[in-house]
Amino acid sequence: MQNSFIEIKEDSHFPIQNLPYSAFQTHNGEIHLCSAIGDYLIDLFVLDEAGLFDGPKLEGQFAFQDSSLNYFMSLGKEAWKEARATLQDLFSADNEILQQDELLRDRVLIPMNGVEMVLPMEIGDYTDFYSSEQHAFNVGTMFRGPENALMPNWKHLPVGYHGRASSIILSGKDVRRPKGQILPQGSDTPVYDSCKLLDFELEMGFVTGVGNELGSRIDVNDAEEHIFGLVLVNDWSARDIQKWEYQPLGPFLAKNFATSISPWIVSLEALEPFRRECKKQDPEPLEYLQQSERSTFDIDLEVAIQSDKMTEPRIVCRSNYQNLYWTMSQQLAHQTVTGCNVRPGDLYASGTISGPTEDSYGSMLELAWKGTKPVSLGNGEERTFLQDGDRVIMRGYAQGEGYRVGFGEVNTKILPSH
Amino acid sequence: MQNSFIEIKEDSHFPIQNLPYSAFQTHNGEIHLCSAIGDYLIDLFVLDEAGLFDGPKLEGQFAFQDSSLNYFMSLGKEAWKEARATLQDLFSADNEILQQDELLRDRVLIPMNGVEMVLPMEIGDYTDFYSSEQHAFNVGTMFRGPENALMPNWKHLPVGYHGRASSIILSGKDVRRPKGQILPQGSDTPVYDSCKLLDFELEMGFVTGVGNELGSRIDVNDAEEHIFGLVLVNDWSARDIQKWEYQPLGPFLAKNFATSISPWIVSLEALEPFRRECKKQDPEPLEYLQQSERSTFDIDLEVAIQSDKMTEPRIVCRSNYQNLYWTMSQQLAHQTVTGCNVRPGDLYASGTISGPTEDSYGSMLELAWKGTKPVSLGNGEERTFLQDGDRVIMRGYAQGEGYRVGFGEVNTKILPSH
Repeated sequence: MQNSFIEIKEDSHFPIQNLPYSAFQTHNGEIHLCSAIGDYLIDLFVLDEAGLFDGPKLEGQFAFQDSSLNYFMSLGKEAWKEARATLQDLFSADNEILQQDELLRDRVLIPMNGVEMVLPMEIGDYTDFYSSEQHAFNVGTMFRGPENALMPNWKHLPVGYHGRASSIILSGKDVRRPKGQILPQGSDTPVYDSCKLLDFELEMGFVTGVGNELGSRIDVNDAEEHIFGLVLVNDWSARDIQKWEYQPLGPFLAKNFATSISPWIVSLEALEPFRRECKKQDPEPLEYLQQSERSTFDIDLEVAIQSDKMTEPRIVCRSNYQNLYWTMSQQLAHQTVTGCNVRPGDLYASGTISGPTEDSYGSMLELAWKGTKPVSLGNGEERTFLQDGDRVIMRGYAQGEGYRVGFGEVNTKILPSH
Repeated sequence: MQNSFIEIKEDSHFPIQNLPYSAFQTHNGEIHLCSAIGDYLIDLFVLDEAGLFDGPKLEGQFAFQDSSLNYFMSLGKEAWKEARATLQDLFSADNEILQQDELLRDRVLIPMNGVEMVLPMEIGDYTDFYSSEQHAFNVGTMFRGPENALMPNWKHLPVGYHGRASSIILSGKDVRRPKGQILPQGSDTPVYDSCKLLDFELEMGFVTGVGNELGSRIDVNDAEEHIFGLVLVNDWSARDIQKWEYQPLGPFLAKNFATSISPWIVSLEALEPFRRECKKQDPEPLEYLQQSERSTFDIDLEVAIQSDKMTEPRIVCRSNYQNLYWTMSQQLAHQTVTGCNVRPGDLYASGTISGPTEDSYGSMLELAWKGTKPVSLGNGEERTFLQDGDRVIMRGYAQGEGYRVGFGEVNTKILPSH
């Protein structure tokens, strides 16, 4: 099962062990759902139309003939497992169906290069958490000193806020530097200007599959039954706009101009071999946040910057998904503890994933420590915050023995403001 | 044009001058869009199917054969005007079409009583502003004293935050008291408990019709072209949950368990006779927030409470939509100034609308001044915050000469927590 008839390089993000989900625009302008293997997209519409999803959960559902994953995600874990098993079987070296049917194979396998990827789900709501202790400590230290860095609530609940769903975009789509209100240093009157302190935030997010009814809650030990998969997230931040606007109701315009995600949603099944136990939390949280076994995934993350003068990107941060204090399950249990309903396709981002070392901080704010320690790009250029023309490239993968389960990248260029 | 063949009482919210929009469940379980006149729903599906929306903007669009208003809202102001003119014509006293066709009339006009209303649009994003100066001053005074009540940014921008779209519900749907983390007075360790300080917030909200592209902005003087209409909003708030969670990223679970709105969206056209000039702002805001003529609408608002011991509701607050410092147009221009995209069906709530007098405060927090001045319900009961079994009823209408343009009500009962 772990060998495919498709040739897959060792550093490919898309071996037969992955089989992530996305959507793309076909040559005649339709939106088809897809998976990926090696350098190819797998056109799921074509496989579904050919009747190849014929297990008990998916037969007759036409789940992959939709233009979004929402319906498939709503079907639940058994359907997700069945789809994965079907794909792993169809692409395994000893399955003849696609190997012998050249016509079908050519319709199913589409060279990835140059194809336009499309947001594969309708995102009903987007929440952004703040779950890396190092990140919260770094930001708190800059603004309040190390003694008061973490707010009193931080170790008792996964702090989060509601974000903007409309401006969630895919990797590859440029982001325009926002304009807004900024309070100049030493002034008490704001000006309308281009954001000067434009920043990335390295995050991951989980996408919910099965939802819950309003008024009910999701138990922390059942939460993974509701989670379809994970994406990479760049939570763009306008630090100067944020500083002036955020009291008392939190970040608003500083975040609403764009949030970039990877086209690929990697399923929890594909990440299972990379599951790792979490450290015990101190203090122990309230019972509704206590998991019988707290675990997360070993996913290597990196951020690179490429200015318009550079020929290749320079890595400025290496972090790991394990650098989070709160797990996905705790985040989802907290989100719903008041009875809030979750729907298929919602996105729950982790917050900036900063590790313990200075080269693992997940934002320019932290890497260049509020502008005081410029980051070298290796070609004589340096950065405290992002400049126009910079390309920010986030990558993430879990390293197995001889294979990688990857998310592809979130690759975004900054355009000058209007 | 202003007289209908339908008998309409003087205090009806739904004269021929109003013609608001909503949706309802038909006797065979379908969702149809509707308007209202007197004591009747107008089934817009039936009118559309009969070919009666035959003007240049709507003919062949089948806009009212959808189960949500989103497509109709996306068509723009000329289409909205045409639909209104068609309805005013069809129901005017000198139009014979419905008066002579009893069969059609019986299918189109449905007695309102007992019909289940349905959320008439898919709400992509929900923003909640904080635009009543008196409310911000009251809350600020309670927590920081009158000198520091307003934050330095408050008069420079319409403060707002992203809310939760999934838990927006209609009038008539009960709300269950949420449970969550609360920090007991004098303790430094939170407990998991039922919210004790459950509150309403009297708000109105506007629904966007035509959106804008990501990266563009909506000019403050064009903003009303993008606004389809207004609803009443009860922004339920769990004050004790909010107090513990909200630093530093703003309200989250304290608001996500429910937001109740009126079933009826009243169009700007229907409100036009009630347009009133606004006072000059001091300080003058930045240019992107300067309207050539700043105006709002004279809409009377009230909140009543009915405990399970009472036979009729007691009014506890009378306010008016004019009690807002920032206009809808300024809110929408601010929301999009960074390039954030707006979509048809988004909801933008005003924030609690408190007036200058103590009986015009729009929340229990203010009316009972943080629990120090209990509010009498007139039957020997009093309230500092809401109790289980209480019914909160918000009503709003604009008073014309001999007619009212009304929103109906937001009528919600509090259920005990699980």
